[in-house]
Amino acid sequence: MSMDRLLENITRKQNPTVAGLDPKLDYIPAYIKEECFETYGKNLEGAAQALLAFNKGLIDGLCGVVPAVKPQAAYYEMYGWQGVRALAWTIAYAKEKGLYVITDGKRNDIGATMQAYAAAHLGVTQVEGEDLEAFGADALTVNGYLGTDGIDPLLKVCGAQDKEIFVLVKTSNPSSGEFQDQMMHAMYEPLYRAMGNMCQKWGQSLPGKYGYSGVGAVVGATYPKQLKELRKALPDTFFLVPGYGAQGGAAKDVAMGFDKHGLGAIVNSSRAIMCAWQKEGCDPKDFAGAACREAVRMRDEIMAELGGISLPV
Amino acid sequence: MSMDRLLENITRKQNPTVAGLDPKLDYIPAYIKEECFETYGKNLEGAAQALLAFNKGLIDGLCGVVPAVKPQAAYYEMYGWQGVRALAWTIAYAKEKGLYVITDGKRNDIGATMQAYAAAHLGVTQVEGEDLEAFGADALTVNGYLGTDGIDPLLKVCGAQDKEIFVLVKTSNPSSGEFQDQMMHAMYEPLYRAMGNMCQKWGQSLPGKYGYSGVGAVVGATYPKQLKELRKALPDTFFLVPGYGAQGGAAKDVAMGFDKHGLGAIVNSSRAIMCAWQKEGCDPKDFAGAACREAVRMRDEIMAELGGISLPV
Repeated sequence: MSMDRLLENITRKQNPTVAGLDPKLDYIPAYIKEECFETYGKNLEGAAQALLAFNKGLIDGLCGVVPAVKPQAAYYEMYGWQGVRALAWTIAYAKEKGLYVITDGKRNDIGATMQAYAAAHLGVTQVEGEDLEAFGADALTVNGYLGTDGIDPLLKVCGAQDKEIFVLVKTSNPSSGEFQDQMMHAMYEPLYRAMGNMCQKWGQSLPGKYGYSGVGAVVGATYPKQLKELRKALPDTFFLVPGYGAQGGAAKDVAMGFDKHGLGAIVNSSRAIMCAWQKEGCDPKDFAGAACREAVRMRDEIMAELGGISLPV
Repeated sequence: MSMDRLLENITRKQNPTVAGLDPKLDYIPAYIKEECFETYGKNLEGAAQALLAFNKGLIDGLCGVVPAVKPQAAYYEMYGWQGVRALAWTIAYAKEKGLYVITDGKRNDIGATMQAYAAAHLGVTQVEGEDLEAFGADALTVNGYLGTDGIDPLLKVCGAQDKEIFVLVKTSNPSSGEFQDQMMHAMYEPLYRAMGNMCQKWGQSLPGKYGYSGVGAVVGATYPKQLKELRKALPDTFFLVPGYGAQGGAAKDVAMGFDKHGLGAIVNSSRAIMCAWQKEGCDPKDFAGAACREAVRMRDEIMAELGGISLPV
């Protein structure tokens, strides 16, 4: 309903970063894969079980350091419904460990269909009068190209279930400007800014006690100028910031997304954390330890820019 | 790779419509639900099995009439991974029956993540050197807000696997104009037109022998003026047209999306077909027959506008 729970998690852990869980088989130590393939077969089932085992290890290693995880739906869907089951079980496990879970699905649709996505990822599904959780994340990333019709059904579920969304505003990729940077004739501002303004508006129905509404925005670390501009222009909108590390965003870049309390954004890192064991060259059985060490390194690098994080009183 | 296979299906059946498979429990006859809940439990598993049984009946009833089906991912995801398994099995069953399958997922992301979606829905996933199909649809709907970085990975898979995509251009909902109708300053044209122009460009790498590339566009029946404008402006871009029927689009409206051969578009109907048995008030066991009768009625209504459909020689 607002970003309050996430902000409290961030402040308690003094860490404004989120670990992306985008597992590919290449990232998983051989001993896990071998065990899963032997037990379940060299098929989508075996692969999905390896994903899940890897994720659980990562979550165990990370849950003391990071406030949140962000599984990216695509990496589960590519392993079929078995992979999607691994997503559901990963979300459940992360929540058990006290982590805030952002499902990165960039979902978008209208009316009853968006209601279905909202029920799937944030709310509950009614079966014979019983409310059942399908995936049950805390937040979902969303694409706003379809306008308010695509957001309203989410706001209802967010309000009822105390959940949040993040709307794509300025994405981190090189070609994001093709549409997002286009100046809108009537508004004298680019499309990403119009999308950002709508996030402010959509968020009004989901106010938060620390000033940040339940409608966040995705703003890439690779565009620090826009990150700074949007931080100023969208005071009620919390940012999810991809593009740190491998894509080129540095700690001083992402710092543009934060307010004077050290709040206002959470920075994502996926591959650098998941594949830290490969980069370190450590014992593969220590993959979770390596993930934790990389998460600590990232936290310290960003916290050096911010100083500290405190909730506004 | 191009729309050729879909065009051939449409021409053979003289029917430019696609049946949406957006199953909700409310749409499913009680006898199916009771049987599934008894066998599998009143839970997501029982619900998902009811979805699948309903879909199979619909596909049996429709496969002689419609050239294609369009399952909407949201309605499966809301029943958890069990629902997503029903999606996978629905796609497999529809393909067995010779139908062209468009997964309506409106997926969007960049780079390696978009590659994962492409592998999931259109391509294959490698597990230990074996190529496995995760969902294996013929086409996927896609949101282009992220620009070329979000489309390129799909084009590669489409080229390699002879698959297609449909990019959201002008959606059918009332608020679609909030962003899509905004005039772009530098281009003197609205965003939807810029998105349409990119579809033409993206499609150049996937040419078709009947003039339509492998990159289609979603254009709503509720905006006939734009449908006409885009048909003229985007000669190589095939249209997927939602919004017919319940949303207000009439046969004369959707006719704007077609070329002189009666080709150029495929019109979707979901609820009217799936719930035809409720509207007819027929024996619930005849739900597939009612779906077929509604599909025939819709085909005849649109074909009366088009005259006939022929492949250009």
